Amino acid sequence: MREFELIERIRRRAGAAPAGVAVGIGDDAAVLELPPGHQLVATTDTLNEGVHFFAGTAAGDLGHKALAVNLSDLAAMGAEPRWALLSLSLPEIGPGWLDEFMDAFLALAGRHHVALVGGDTCAGPLSLTVTALGVVEPGRVLTRTGARPGDLVVVSGTLGDAALAVQQLENGETPLPEALAALLRPQPRVALGARLAGVASAVIDISDGLLADLGHVAQASGCGAEIELERLPCSAGLAALPEARRWPLLLAGGDAYELCFTLPEERSGRLDALRDELGTALTVVGRMDEGEAVRCRAGDGTLYTCDRTGYDHFA
Amino acid sequence: MREFELIERIRRRAGAAPAGVAVGIGDDAAVLELPPGHQLVATTDTLNEGVHFFAGTAAGDLGHKALAVNLSDLAAMGAEPRWALLSLSLPEIGPGWLDEFMDAFLALAGRHHVALVGGDTCAGPLSLTVTALGVVEPGRVLTRTGARPGDLVVVSGTLGDAALAVQQLENGETPLPEALAALLRPQPRVALGARLAGVASAVIDISDGLLADLGHVAQASGCGAEIELERLPCSAGLAALPEARRWPLLLAGGDAYELCFTLPEERSGRLDALRDELGTALTVVGRMDEGEAVRCRAGDGTLYTCDRTGYDHFA
Repeated sequence: MREFELIERIRRRAGAAPAGVAVGIGDDAAVLELPPGHQLVATTDTLNEGVHFFAGTAAGDLGHKALAVNLSDLAAMGAEPRWALLSLSLPEIGPGWLDEFMDAFLALAGRHHVALVGGDTCAGPLSLTVTALGVVEPGRVLTRTGARPGDLVVVSGTLGDAALAVQQLENGETPLPEALAALLRPQPRVALGARLAGVASAVIDISDGLLADLGHVAQASGCGAEIELERLPCSAGLAALPEARRWPLLLAGGDAYELCFTLPEERSGRLDALRDELGTALTVVGRMDEGEAVRCRAGDGTLYTCDRTGYDHFA
Repeated sequence: MREFELIERIRRRAGAAPAGVAVGIGDDAAVLELPPGHQLVATTDTLNEGVHFFAGTAAGDLGHKALAVNLSDLAAMGAEPRWALLSLSLPEIGPGWLDEFMDAFLALAGRHHVALVGGDTCAGPLSLTVTALGVVEPGRVLTRTGARPGDLVVVSGTLGDAALAVQQLENGETPLPEALAALLRPQPRVALGARLAGVASAVIDISDGLLADLGHVAQASGCGAEIELERLPCSAGLAALPEARRWPLLLAGGDAYELCFTLPEERSGRLDALRDELGTALTVVGRMDEGEAVRCRAGDGTLYTCDRTGYDHFA
């Protein structure tokens, strides 16, 4: 397949441009209309073979995840996703691979009303870069800077599953199905992010691990935090592991794409309504304070030191 | 250097966020304000080592070019560049490499009033993906679809220099300085693009070669075009080459990042004013017509067939 055919194939699968897209795929750039009075929210994330995913990962899993990790960043800002650009570096092109990739990408895009409006295709080691664009009303933006001592720390869903799957695959074990699903098909918490304006004081998505990401919130907000280990939400598979293996996965396991947010205690009554509305587990795992950085306390009251603090590409 | 230090180093170099940037580098996504009544223009392009540039290319040349090729796409839409996101995949991090890369990136960004507002850094084969965001007033957007039979075909600057440099480097020859400069430091025609609203009927930037890119305009506009070979603007170095080597470079040489636009003949008087204002060569090289695709006519009136039609990543 030639490059022009590849782009045509993507354009046909992407379908007609929806409202808000003045110029879509097929010109030098996309031209897009924001709803009046909204701000633009923009983020970009790359997935590289052998770094972010194992060689041989199914095309559909990659198509889903390349978009999902970007929608997770928009969710953490409280933005409504609108558009995406896709840059695809491929060692070679097979129409089957491409169709499977695009079907999964576009299925997730469709569920979140995101239009694919442009991108780039080129030869190179397998690498996927998505730029996700969304909109938000001023004053409803969620940042990392608003946490205050006393605020509760809340996380959505469960932690550590994706990191467990990576560990099992690296060890040559068969990963647990729920862990593998968390790794390959993370569900960005877009609906939750959109409900957190006026509720959360700070929000971040957990891509590098809870300790690292809550650490970013603590630093940006000028406070510290204490986590209660026994409260960390985990799947049944993870719960069955010994603490020495479980705790590092919960605290430092990356690729979770859950939201971590802080909440002034007087608003804690809002959590039940959010849980009911969204059907999402929301667990209070600790509290912001005036201490140093992020500390973890075990059930017996002792401090636990995690030997990993999160994923670092260059460590 | 660790990933966090790398991002901090980029953030410090990028400086304070200008007006229009509500949230810049350092949160999950950037939050940006468009001027009222404007549309958003968005494009993304990737440069991969060994594909888009030779291994060992200087960091400064890469920093410049990664942004330049994206600004060229905004120019071809008539947009005013505003913001950029940078995704950087690096096999390893050296502070010297990074500083040189960022200095050149930010120097070009500064000349075009572009703020770096976010991005991603990760381990992987050297690869640079930039997303450039700009704004345009509705009705001033330049697309590929508006050319009509009889319109003049105009190109800015000179063609073929970057492709000549690639050829010389591949042959182990010392490239001509002007050819090397065109390859490594292309100057996006942002000011020209901004002046073409109400003048040009269709615009494209020449990234894949004149024949291929004018072919896109012809196809999108539903007409054909004829190019006069003797008129193609070229540097002194290229002019000294024999026709058999020169013509394919002029017609099919990629990486030019000049603009090609079509112009209703009654507006041809505007070209002199544009040349004077911008100090940019603007050469009429042919004319749109009702024929098939793009044809090239030599000085003796015969048709010339180019054995290459443009760069294809997967051919």
